[in-house]
Amino acid sequence: MTKILAPGDTVGILGGGQLGRMLALAAARLGLNCHIFEPQPSPPAGQVAHRVTTADYDDHAALRAFAGSVDVVTFEFENIPLGVLDTIESVTNIYPPQKALAVSQDRVAEKGFLTDLGFQVAPYAPVDTPADFDAAVAITGTPAILKTRRFGYDGKGQLKVTEEAISDALRDLMQSAPCVLESFVDFTREISVIGARNPDGQVACFDPGENVHKNGILSTTTVPAQLTAAQRTDAVILTGRIMNALNYVGVMGVELFVTPAGLLVNEIAPRVHNSGHWTQNGCVIDQFEQHIRAVAGWPMGDARRHSNVTMTNLIGNAVQDIDGLRGDPDVALHLYGKAEVRAGRKMGHSNRITGPA
Amino acid sequence: MTKILAPGDTVGILGGGQLGRMLALAAARLGLNCHIFEPQPSPPAGQVAHRVTTADYDDHAALRAFAGSVDVVTFEFENIPLGVLDTIESVTNIYPPQKALAVSQDRVAEKGFLTDLGFQVAPYAPVDTPADFDAAVAITGTPAILKTRRFGYDGKGQLKVTEEAISDALRDLMQSAPCVLESFVDFTREISVIGARNPDGQVACFDPGENVHKNGILSTTTVPAQLTAAQRTDAVILTGRIMNALNYVGVMGVELFVTPAGLLVNEIAPRVHNSGHWTQNGCVIDQFEQHIRAVAGWPMGDARRHSNVTMTNLIGNAVQDIDGLRGDPDVALHLYGKAEVRAGRKMGHSNRITGPA
Repeated sequence: MTKILAPGDTVGILGGGQLGRMLALAAARLGLNCHIFEPQPSPPAGQVAHRVTTADYDDHAALRAFAGSVDVVTFEFENIPLGVLDTIESVTNIYPPQKALAVSQDRVAEKGFLTDLGFQVAPYAPVDTPADFDAAVAITGTPAILKTRRFGYDGKGQLKVTEEAISDALRDLMQSAPCVLESFVDFTREISVIGARNPDGQVACFDPGENVHKNGILSTTTVPAQLTAAQRTDAVILTGRIMNALNYVGVMGVELFVTPAGLLVNEIAPRVHNSGHWTQNGCVIDQFEQHIRAVAGWPMGDARRHSNVTMTNLIGNAVQDIDGLRGDPDVALHLYGKAEVRAGRKMGHSNRITGPA
Repeated sequence: MTKILAPGDTVGILGGGQLGRMLALAAARLGLNCHIFEPQPSPPAGQVAHRVTTADYDDHAALRAFAGSVDVVTFEFENIPLGVLDTIESVTNIYPPQKALAVSQDRVAEKGFLTDLGFQVAPYAPVDTPADFDAAVAITGTPAILKTRRFGYDGKGQLKVTEEAISDALRDLMQSAPCVLESFVDFTREISVIGARNPDGQVACFDPGENVHKNGILSTTTVPAQLTAAQRTDAVILTGRIMNALNYVGVMGVELFVTPAGLLVNEIAPRVHNSGHWTQNGCVIDQFEQHIRAVAGWPMGDARRHSNVTMTNLIGNAVQDIDGLRGDPDVALHLYGKAEVRAGRKMGHSNRITGPA
């Protein structure tokens, strides 16, 4: 049973990073409280939340107390141990649903799910041990990318495969964890669709954004993406079908490759997504509010776009660019309250308005 | 000396109501922390702030400790005892400046300041005691409005004067506090300009909004206001001149009457203003972020408007309207996290998008 949250009710969020922080800010706009569960002390989301629990994910007593103190639970990242969700679901609802998390946590399960729905993915093959490599590369060809099946993000746990021989680095990666080998996709562009679905099955998708990655980390998202009307429609319909198939509740990011052979699904993220940050300044209702609305059992907000936007991540020392950005009349800044600058760390982002939609 | 705040620095806010709450949310977007000072326990702003001090305004030790813990102080309401500001200024900067507060706290000082600048105000006369009434009404004529010089808001401390005789209610009001009698202005419409100015003297004004009051409380603000281009320009220039004359830092609300004889200044509010809430969904940078930018010594954000908006206050039981409003695709809801609904209490507001600007 879905509870429709009322002002003063509390959303529990697993994870206290920048996504949790921006979810908490959106919840506050709607008069909802947030309770953050995060193992690290002083998380960015904690600065703007009603309450913070600092405990490890294997502390099931703390998880139960957390779940008992809130009206619904959601999460800001997908690498949550599934046992955590079982504990929470014994107490209260958790959205997005476990199945979405299970599918997205395992690249092989994810690709199986997507191909079962009839969508194209890059040719792939599981590589449980180095002994599987030769058969896998026979399927994918080269170049290909070897990825751990689980827990990869921002380019971590990935190596490019340029020849059929196994290098030492590839062998180390294969021995560290079960992997999957994926054909390298020669894409025209990378896009993503940020969709949302509520417990009544109401779906709203934002316009596709066009993404540029650098060193495996998202660098910029630009809307509108350079797409034909048919591609745009296909991308949105595909996202809706994925969410419906999972009986999904919340915001989902669907990353797609645009290729001469059509759209390939790269991966799905069962959470608010970095490539949806542009919605904060391009739409009246942004992805964070959409997610809170969905898990709160509210109607979906309108996803229409009033402005064209380029979002740029401020990574590591790039946060020093804020001196120039804050004086730029076309830029809205979003900073995450992280005290320490580290290489590769997402410190904030800028949304540059490039014109009316 | 103005300190330019950096991410991780802290803004102190006197007052923990909905305006402080929305200021704290804007500060969080910019990576700044907030420390709220508020006599009442569990203030709406405290739910989203880094830190809260619960103490009375006459607790000068608490004020000094508060001021010492932050990088700049600002306030969400103008009825702060001036002695509070002296204590804070002995420790750190406070914006907007004391002079703006002193002028806006006293309706007679305010009208003197405005007429000295050459602006039109309604004919008025101080009424320190009931003995002053006859001379005052000779200046203003009837109908007129008797108002306390200080501490009035949302129609409180006001009575309409329809004849030259003194009723019991008028006598009670005159005996309760020093008053001012103002001519009743037969206006075509009420508008307000939300302006912002930073320590470098950079000024940015949002488009004028058109206000409708009910029972002395703001009910709706609509942008664009129905004004001629000349009226629009006059209203904005006038606001800039007021801010420059006060060497102002922060956001100011200037309420104006549009009359056949031109613009009359009704009152100025040295703070973010209810009639500026539309900027949250009509502009990329809203009034709350502008205020934080100004007091943080940052450049002013662009004040351009991307959408037409009608803001409607949700007062008292009107908050029950949210069931309908949250399903309306043209509406963004903003709720203040107030637990108890009371008659006349501002519980939230809705911003209805009525089209592109």
